[in-house]
Amino acid sequence: MSYAIIATWRMALEGIEEGVKLLKDNGSSADAIEKAVKMVEDFPYYKSVGYGGLPNENGEVELDAAFMDGDSLSIGAVAGIKDFKNPISIARKLSEQKFNCFLVGAGAEEYAHKNGFERKNMLTDRAIIHYKNRLKETVEKGLSPYDGHDTVGMVALDNSDSMASGTSTSGLFMKKRGRTGDSAVSGSGFYVDSEIGGATATGLGEDIMKGCSSYEIVRLMKEGYTPQQAADKAVSELNDLLIKRRKKAGDISVVCINNKGEFGVATNIENFSFVIATDKIEPIVYVCKNKNGKTTYRVATEEWLENYMNKRTAPLKLK
Amino acid sequence: MSYAIIATWRMALEGIEEGVKLLKDNGSSADAIEKAVKMVEDFPYYKSVGYGGLPNENGEVELDAAFMDGDSLSIGAVAGIKDFKNPISIARKLSEQKFNCFLVGAGAEEYAHKNGFERKNMLTDRAIIHYKNRLKETVEKGLSPYDGHDTVGMVALDNSDSMASGTSTSGLFMKKRGRTGDSAVSGSGFYVDSEIGGATATGLGEDIMKGCSSYEIVRLMKEGYTPQQAADKAVSELNDLLIKRRKKAGDISVVCINNKGEFGVATNIENFSFVIATDKIEPIVYVCKNKNGKTTYRVATEEWLENYMNKRTAPLKLK
Repeated sequence: MSYAIIATWRMALEGIEEGVKLLKDNGSSADAIEKAVKMVEDFPYYKSVGYGGLPNENGEVELDAAFMDGDSLSIGAVAGIKDFKNPISIARKLSEQKFNCFLVGAGAEEYAHKNGFERKNMLTDRAIIHYKNRLKETVEKGLSPYDGHDTVGMVALDNSDSMASGTSTSGLFMKKRGRTGDSAVSGSGFYVDSEIGGATATGLGEDIMKGCSSYEIVRLMKEGYTPQQAADKAVSELNDLLIKRRKKAGDISVVCINNKGEFGVATNIENFSFVIATDKIEPIVYVCKNKNGKTTYRVATEEWLENYMNKRTAPLKLK
Repeated sequence: MSYAIIATWRMALEGIEEGVKLLKDNGSSADAIEKAVKMVEDFPYYKSVGYGGLPNENGEVELDAAFMDGDSLSIGAVAGIKDFKNPISIARKLSEQKFNCFLVGAGAEEYAHKNGFERKNMLTDRAIIHYKNRLKETVEKGLSPYDGHDTVGMVALDNSDSMASGTSTSGLFMKKRGRTGDSAVSGSGFYVDSEIGGATATGLGEDIMKGCSSYEIVRLMKEGYTPQQAADKAVSELNDLLIKRRKKAGDISVVCINNKGEFGVATNIENFSFVIATDKIEPIVYVCKNKNGKTTYRVATEEWLENYMNKRTAPLKLK
C-alpha cells in the first residue's frame, strides 16, 4: 500500500496538503485530485487558475478543466466555461457519462447549471487591474499580450492502487475568446492509466498539443522507463522537434508518477516548480533546472517560497 | 515523387477525386485536404459533416473541425461552431497562428466572422425531419438517442513530401449542446508528421480520446511498423483495453498513410469504408471487415456503392 500525489507549480501546495490527508485515510485518488484542484481554483491570488484567473482579451475569465479516471480511462472535460466556481468538479461529473464527456462554451455552462454547480463571477478586482495594465502596455509598448499559462495539473495514486488526474486553468492571459489549450485535451494536458502511471503538463498549450506529451510519458513508463527518464525523454524530444521544425519551442513542463508512487519531472524552462507528497514524503515544493535535456531539482528555499507568495499578493496599482 | 490521399468513409470520394487532381498538379497536401474536406462539408446528404449534418438535442448543428500541417506540426481546430459553411477552412486559418489555435463555441464564431468566413445556416430541411423523427422514437421507444458519428478525416502526401491532415464533423446526432469528440483533439482525431506519416480516426470520440489513436499510429510508423501494422495494432490494443476496463468499446476506425504514400486501415466495426488515391491508384472505395484484430478490405461493389447513396438520398418522411 502506498499513495502519492504530484502537481505542477508551487500554487498547488495547500491543495496537495489537503489531498494527501484524504489519501492517508484511504480516500480515493479521484477525491484527492478534486479536493486539491478545488483549493487552487478557490485561492484568489493565483492568476491562471479558477477564481482570480486572468481574463481573455474581452475581459472575461474563461476556464478549461479536465478529469481522468485511471481505472476506467473515463475522461471529463470543459473548455471555455465562464462563471462557475469549480470547473474541476464539472469535469469529474462529466467523466461519469458514457457520451457527451467533453463540453465547450455555452453548452458546458448549460450542463453545469442544470446539474446544480455553483455559479460565481470569477473575475476579481485584482484581475481587472492586471487586465487594464496589460491592455495599456500592449498598446503603448507593442508587447505581445500573451503570458501566464500556469495550469495546475495533478496526478494521484491511492492505497487501492487507483490513479486519477486533473487539470484546471484560465489559460493564456489575453487569449482570444474561446481559445483552449492542452488542459482540456486528453493525451496532451493529462493522461493516466492505473496499471502504469499518469502525467500532466503545463506551458504553451498550442505547442504541447503538437507532441501529446502526457500520453507519451505514460507510454514510456509502460515500456519500462522510470518516471524521470520518461519525463526527460518526452520533454526534450518535443522541445528538439519544435526547434527543428519551427525554430522555437514554447514552454513545456511536466510531472508524472507511476503506479508505485515514484515520480518524475521535466521542463524546458527555468524556475518551474512542483509539489510532491507520498506516504514517505511530506508535501514539499521543488524548483527545477534544465541542463542539456536533463531536469534537476532542489528543495525550494524559504526565500524562494516567500518571493513566490509576495509576488502574487503584492499590492497592485492601476498604471 | 509520389502523392497520396486517404479518407474515412465513402462520403469522401468526390472530395478525394478533386483533391487528387491538385496533388497530381504538384499542389500542396494542405490545399488538397482543404479542398477535399470542403466538398464533403458542402454536400447536403451526408448527415454527419457540414451542411446537412444532424443537430444536437437542441436542434442546432454544431460543428468540429481540425487541420494539421505535417511540416511545422501547426494545428488549428474549432469545436462547437455554428452557422459557418466550411469549418475546415477556419481550422486551417487558425493553424497559421502561433497562439489561439484551438477555439470553441462563440469565440470560434467570432473569429470566423472577423476573418470573413462565409455564414450559412447549416440545418437542412432533411436534417430537421431526422431530428423530429429521432425525438419521437426516443420518447416512444426509449432508445438511446445517440448515433451517427461518421467524421470525415483525411491525410495527404504531396510531391514535395509535405503532409497534412484534416477532420470535419457535426458529431454525435442528438449530442448535448457543446459536446465535442475526438475530431478537434490533436493526437486522437488526427496527427501528422511529414517525416513519418499521418493518421485520422472516426467513431465514438469519447472512446478514441482514451487512446490517442492517431498519435499512437504515427508513433508506431516511426518505430518501423508498416501503416497497416500500425493501424491494426493501435485499434486492436485500444479495443481490447476498453473491453478489459469498461466491458465495452465504442466504434473505432482509422486510416493512415506514411511518407512514402503506403496506406493502412483498421476498424473494430463491420462496414467501415474508406477512399484512397495515389499516383498509382485511381480514387477507389474499399469496405472493411475485422477478424481477430486484423482488418481486411475489398473494393466496394457497384451494389454497395448504390446502396450507400440510395440510403442517404432516399425520400424522408416525417413520422
